[in-house]
Amino acid sequence: VNLPDVFTRYRGYIDSGLKSTVGEAALPLFGMLRYHMGWADEKGQPMTSNSGKAVRPALCLFSCEAVGGSKDHALPAALGLELVHNFSLIHDDIQDGDTERRHRATVWYLWGIDHGINAGAALNVVANLALFPKPLPSTDGVRLLAASRLLTQSCAEMIEGQAIDLSFEERLNVTVNDYLVMVGKKTGALLTCAVHMGALLGTDCEDTIAQLRLSGKALGALFQIRDDILGVWGKEAETGKPVAADIKRRKKSLPAVHALERASGQAHDRLRDIYRRRDSMTQAELDDVLDIMDDCSTQRFCQDLAAEKAQAVTKELSKVKMEPWARQGFEELATFLLEREF
Amino acid sequence: VNLPDVFTRYRGYIDSGLKSTVGEAALPLFGMLRYHMGWADEKGQPMTSNSGKAVRPALCLFSCEAVGGSKDHALPAALGLELVHNFSLIHDDIQDGDTERRHRATVWYLWGIDHGINAGAALNVVANLALFPKPLPSTDGVRLLAASRLLTQSCAEMIEGQAIDLSFEERLNVTVNDYLVMVGKKTGALLTCAVHMGALLGTDCEDTIAQLRLSGKALGALFQIRDDILGVWGKEAETGKPVAADIKRRKKSLPAVHALERASGQAHDRLRDIYRRRDSMTQAELDDVLDIMDDCSTQRFCQDLAAEKAQAVTKELSKVKMEPWARQGFEELATFLLEREF
Repeated sequence: VNLPDVFTRYRGYIDSGLKSTVGEAALPLFGMLRYHMGWADEKGQPMTSNSGKAVRPALCLFSCEAVGGSKDHALPAALGLELVHNFSLIHDDIQDGDTERRHRATVWYLWGIDHGINAGAALNVVANLALFPKPLPSTDGVRLLAASRLLTQSCAEMIEGQAIDLSFEERLNVTVNDYLVMVGKKTGALLTCAVHMGALLGTDCEDTIAQLRLSGKALGALFQIRDDILGVWGKEAETGKPVAADIKRRKKSLPAVHALERASGQAHDRLRDIYRRRDSMTQAELDDVLDIMDDCSTQRFCQDLAAEKAQAVTKELSKVKMEPWARQGFEELATFLLEREF
Repeated sequence: VNLPDVFTRYRGYIDSGLKSTVGEAALPLFGMLRYHMGWADEKGQPMTSNSGKAVRPALCLFSCEAVGGSKDHALPAALGLELVHNFSLIHDDIQDGDTERRHRATVWYLWGIDHGINAGAALNVVANLALFPKPLPSTDGVRLLAASRLLTQSCAEMIEGQAIDLSFEERLNVTVNDYLVMVGKKTGALLTCAVHMGALLGTDCEDTIAQLRLSGKALGALFQIRDDILGVWGKEAETGKPVAADIKRRKKSLPAVHALERASGQAHDRLRDIYRRRDSMTQAELDDVLDIMDDCSTQRFCQDLAAEKAQAVTKELSKVKMEPWARQGFEELATFLLEREF
């Protein structure tokens, strides 16, 4: 499967918008931001690099057009959203101790933790500025204010989710349900917000907006569940991450949480023992974890749950009047998120 | 000297506003925020503790009333400002490795750096929410939007200032001028913003707003210069910080920058040698730094510069029509900031 048109059609529009929000300011601070966004190397020289799938802003623009709005009205919100997401990535990389992202050294790894904290905070501020461009687009200020409030609340939820995720590191008794609540915030908040803001800036029909928000929630869960599957069984050539990366770092992602909940007897004891340790994981331990997950049908469980979420997207949208191309776009999106290998 | 009425009169009004913005949410994340703000202990039990002078929100409310506005119109801006300031403190404490603030353990010291990064980011988000309360106060949305943009830009400037300050740690050739540019951003941006936002939400007269902004700039510089003086020559009982704290940590605050620029010959070599080292400072080294500062009349230089800024406050305000009580309030403020011991 490949990126559907829904993601790719807005790419240039989003990129040029993003570049204009970060601007040309020469300070080291903005140099770090341009580096992180993939537009400059660490010396500040312009370059082009893989800057991610831009899922969130594309979803926001698409959602706006799907309900009959103009993408120009949703652009500030879409840009703000992508910048908030990137602010969280810079801080996540510090918290996870990750030295690489998208095949490049992370900001904190190049400039140190202190500057990394600053760079993340700055990108959050740039996100706020992006939301209220001068001059304001022709949407009225009240709508943009509502979008701004929504983004801010979603950002708060995302940070809550990150805090809960950090607390999972010290727990072995995380349930699948705990996990779903956590990712609903950590990943789900911004993806839901993308669809919700797009709808809000595209139509006045409150039922449509509410229904799209629900489909956004399902898309968010779907996105993260597939991400977790790839974090264990993904191919390095496709994902750009080492095989079984999430197991090696003992992440309480869905497969681990499921296996810890499902396994019993010796397998359960072995799994708890491996996940309790703090040293780096041996190959034998890794193999044992993968074997236990096989015995628990963990991959099947995860993929079934993802498929459920994909069906929920379609179901929520079935209650909304929408042009065929728009409905089809959402379905291609759900299919891609369910089957993607990267 | 004591806190003038300008600072103290709004205290209860500000505190109850702040508490309502952070809310009662039970998550560990909000517990950290209530702890930092001085309303709860580390277990989450309510307590009252010294939560700072609340200079910024008081200045914002006062500035609004001074130009004839109602403080209710400026409250959301004042709260947002204080929350942005506190977000920066949580991150600063991580960056400076400070284990205590206002006689209590810092957030990162209690909960770790990862949670500290989150707590700071969350407080910045809460600041954005505070700016647009539901329902909006009777000021029109356009004005509040302008205030929001101003706060966001000032926040970006503050982070730039922090990034420049971090870069000073690796330099010995920081000039007094470099220093003034840096603090104009790091400290000055929010204090200027306080006066500017208050005026903006209190009057439509653009000349008045512009003039108050200039006086705010002078107040900001004055505040920081006196802070730097207290960081070297302040009394522990008054400041709550160890004597000569800024020297011991080799901070490039104004006294250090002045002495490094002014000293010559052996004194200059000795000073550079001491400031270049990374180990903890000996008493002999500390004494030498203080002696060299004496020889350079550094304290006199700093206090004269502060007095210049205090005069600038009065001068900028002399161009504005203002009721006598308001003008007097600003002058008491300038006098306090010039002479304060804490």
